[in-house]
Amino acid sequence: MIRFACACILALVAALPVRAAVDIQEVTSPGGIDAWLVESHEIPFVALEIRFQGGASLDAPGKRGAINLMTGLLEEGAGEMDARAFATARDALAASFEFDVYNDALSVSAQFLTENRAAAVDLLRLALTEPRFDQDAVERVRAQVVSAIRSDAKDPDKIASHTFNELAFGDHPYGTPVNGREEDVTALTRADVIEAKSRVMTRDRLFVSAVGDITAQELGVLLDDLLAGLPERGAPMPGKAEYRLSGGVTVVPFDTPQSVAVFGHEGIDRDDPDFFAAYVLNGVLGSGGFSSRLMEEVREKRGLTYGVYSYLYPMDHAALMLGQVASANNRVAEAIDVIRAEWASVAQEGITQAELDAVKTYLTGAYPLRFDGNGPIANIMVGMQMQGQGVDYIATRNDKINAVTLSDIRRVAARLLDADALHFVVVGQPVGLETTN
Amino acid sequence: MIRFACACILALVAALPVRAAVDIQEVTSPGGIDAWLVESHEIPFVALEIRFQGGASLDAPGKRGAINLMTGLLEEGAGEMDARAFATARDALAASFEFDVYNDALSVSAQFLTENRAAAVDLLRLALTEPRFDQDAVERVRAQVVSAIRSDAKDPDKIASHTFNELAFGDHPYGTPVNGREEDVTALTRADVIEAKSRVMTRDRLFVSAVGDITAQELGVLLDDLLAGLPERGAPMPGKAEYRLSGGVTVVPFDTPQSVAVFGHEGIDRDDPDFFAAYVLNGVLGSGGFSSRLMEEVREKRGLTYGVYSYLYPMDHAALMLGQVASANNRVAEAIDVIRAEWASVAQEGITQAELDAVKTYLTGAYPLRFDGNGPIANIMVGMQMQGQGVDYIATRNDKINAVTLSDIRRVAARLLDADALHFVVVGQPVGLETTN
Repeated sequence: MIRFACACILALVAALPVRAAVDIQEVTSPGGIDAWLVESHEIPFVALEIRFQGGASLDAPGKRGAINLMTGLLEEGAGEMDARAFATARDALAASFEFDVYNDALSVSAQFLTENRAAAVDLLRLALTEPRFDQDAVERVRAQVVSAIRSDAKDPDKIASHTFNELAFGDHPYGTPVNGREEDVTALTRADVIEAKSRVMTRDRLFVSAVGDITAQELGVLLDDLLAGLPERGAPMPGKAEYRLSGGVTVVPFDTPQSVAVFGHEGIDRDDPDFFAAYVLNGVLGSGGFSSRLMEEVREKRGLTYGVYSYLYPMDHAALMLGQVASANNRVAEAIDVIRAEWASVAQEGITQAELDAVKTYLTGAYPLRFDGNGPIANIMVGMQMQGQGVDYIATRNDKINAVTLSDIRRVAARLLDADALHFVVVGQPVGLETTN
Repeated sequence: MIRFACACILALVAALPVRAAVDIQEVTSPGGIDAWLVESHEIPFVALEIRFQGGASLDAPGKRGAINLMTGLLEEGAGEMDARAFATARDALAASFEFDVYNDALSVSAQFLTENRAAAVDLLRLALTEPRFDQDAVERVRAQVVSAIRSDAKDPDKIASHTFNELAFGDHPYGTPVNGREEDVTALTRADVIEAKSRVMTRDRLFVSAVGDITAQELGVLLDDLLAGLPERGAPMPGKAEYRLSGGVTVVPFDTPQSVAVFGHEGIDRDDPDFFAAYVLNGVLGSGGFSSRLMEEVREKRGLTYGVYSYLYPMDHAALMLGQVASANNRVAEAIDVIRAEWASVAQEGITQAELDAVKTYLTGAYPLRFDGNGPIANIMVGMQMQGQGVDYIATRNDKINAVTLSDIRRVAARLLDADALHFVVVGQPVGLETTN
C-alpha cells in the first residue's frame, strides 16, 4: 500500500514545479556512510554515482598523471580476475561501470538491474577496493594515455586551454592537464599507481547518490558492502592555486586557417553571496545560446565567428571566468577587440531590465529539463553534495535566480568583469597579434 | 481521477520487465499525421522527436553537402525573425531545439515545458516551414562547415572512415561525407539550400514520437499545428548503393606514431530473418566491451591495441559490417593478421554455447537501461518506426534475442563473415603494409 500512496502523491504534485517531484531522502548506512536517494520504481534498475573529491589534483609532486592512469586501470582486473574475466563477469550481469577523473573529482557511475544488484555491487567493490594494477595492464593503459597526450598536442582547442592553465597556475596541479605530460606518464611505475589510489579513493572525501529501484534500507546495506573497505583518509588537498596571469595576449603558432582563442581572468567562488548574480550576468553576457551579448556583437553584427561564449568556472582551489572564440587568422584580432570592448561596456553599464527578465525566464524554465532520467538525477545530486548544497537546493534554486536584481547585476559586473585583466591565448597564425610582455 | 488511476497502474506493473512500463499509444492527428506517444506526467515537459527519412542521402547530384548546410541554417532565423531574434524568443520560452543530419535521416529534437507548449510549437513551426536562409547566415554556417571539413582532413579516424566509404560506394551519396567536400560546399548557392529543404523536409517521409506531459488529443493538435504546412512530397531516394570493395589493404600515409584502421565488408539488412542472429554473433565477436573475441585476441593475448571492435551497420540503401582498431605503426600489420584470422575462425567454427548464453544475458539485461528518461525513450521510439517495427517491438525484442540458437549463429557466421573480403583502410605510417592491387 505504501507504494500506491507514493505513486498517487507524485501524480498529485505533477502540476507543480519540478522541485516537488524530486523527493530526496538523506540516507546514512549502518557503517556511517552518507548518501542521497531518490526512489523511482518505474524501471527495475539503479543509477549510482560515487565521487571522490580532490580528483587528479591530489597527484603527488612529480607524479602528475598518476591518478588518471590509475583511474584507467580500475576496470583492468580486480581480485582473482584479470581484465577479460572482469569484463566477462560485468557483461554477464548486464551492469555498466564508468570511471572518470577530473581535477576536482574522481567519479564512478554504475547502473545495474535490480535482479543483479548484489552481484553487481560485489563486482564493483572488487574494482574499487582490490584492483590488480597488473604490469601488462599498466603498459596497455599507459600507451593509450600517451596516445591521447600526443593527439591533444595537435588539437588547437586543447593547446589553447592547456596553455592558459599553465600560464595561470604554473606548478599547481591545475597548471597541467589531468592526463599529465608525456615524460611524466612514461616515468610512472606500478608503485606510483598504487600510491595514487591511496591518495584519492578514501572515505574522508566520498559523496554518493542513488536513483532508482531501491529503498533507503537496501541502499544502506549496499553502501557498507561497497565502500566500507576503502581506507579512511587520503592525501592532503593541494591548497589554493594562485592565479598568475595579467591582461594581455599569448600567441601559440600553429598551422591552421582559423585561430582558436581561450580567454579569461579570475572568477567568483561558488559560495560567494554574489555567485547567483554573476551566473545570471554571464547568462546575458556570453553563455551558451545565440542570444548573448557576445554572440550579437562578434557574430551577428560583424560575422567574425560562428560561435563565442563565456562561462563561470569555479573550482575547489581557484575560480576563473573563461571564454572561447574561433575566427579566421586575419579577423581574430578584431574579434578580440570586440570581446574586450563588450566586457568593458557590461562592466560599466550593466544590462537592461529586459535582458534580466529574459535570462531569468530561460534559466528557471530550462532547469526542470535537466531532471530527465535516473542517471541525470543521480549526477545532479552528487554535484549538489560536493558543492555543499542541502537537499532543499532544487526547491530554492529558481527562487535565488529570480531574486537577483539589476543592482545586484551592476555590483557584480563592476567587481567581476575586468577588460584590462583579460588574457587571450591564441593558437593559430593570427594576423596583427603578438605575445605581449 | 484518470490521472490517479494511471499512476497506480504504473506502480502495479513496476515489478514486471520494462516492456510493461513503456505504454506506447499510436496517435493520428486530425490532419492525418501519425506519431507514437508515451504519456509521462512526472515532469512538466515534453520530448518530441521528428525524423525525415532520406536525410543527407537526398542531396542532388553535384550538390553534396547542401542538406547539411540547410540543416545548419534552420536555427538561423525564420519568419520575421533574424537569427538573434529567433534565439531570444526560444530562450525566453526555455525551449530546446536541436537539428542534426545523417545519411539516412534529418532529425529534429525539441523539448519544451508544458506551460510554454503552444508558443514553443509555434516557434518550431516557423523554423521548419519558414526558415529565412539569409545570405549572411548562409556565409556564416558555410564558413563553419568548411572549418569542420578542414579539421576532419587532419583527423586520422575521420580520414580512415571517409576513405573506406569512398572506396566502397563511389558516386553514391554514401561515398562522400554528409558535410560534403570543401569545393562543393564553397560552390553551393542560397537557391541550392532552398532546393535542399524541399528534397528532404516533406510529409511523405516523416516519423514522429513524443514522450512526456501531453495527452493523445493534445498531441494530435500539436502535430497539425507544427507539421501540416510541410510540402507533401520530397525527392526520390537515391537507390541502392553498390558495394565496390574487395578484400585487401589501402594505406593512407599520415604522420602519426599510431595507425588507425577501419575495416569491413558487406553486412546484413535489418529485415533479414537472420539479423538478430548476426547481432548476437557480433556481440561475441567484437562489440563494445572488453570481453569480445577480438579484444581477447588482439588486446589481451598480444597487447597490440588498447581497443578493437566490430559492429553491424545496416543503412537504408546498403548494409556493412565494420570494425576499427588503432595500433603502433610497427604492430598494426600483426593486429590486422590477427583480426583476419579470428574472423575466419568464427566463420568456420562459430562460437561456444557458454559465449552464446553470456551474450544473451548481457544483451537482454542491458536493454531496460536504455529507457531512462523522456528524451531517450522518444529517440528509441522514432528509430523503431523508421525501421518498420511495430509498437510491440519493445515487448518482443528480448524474446527474439533469446530465440537465437547455436545453429542460427553457425549459419549466419558462415554466410556473413568472410575474412578474404575484409578490406582494411590504414591511416598512418604502418610498417610492412602496402596498398594492394
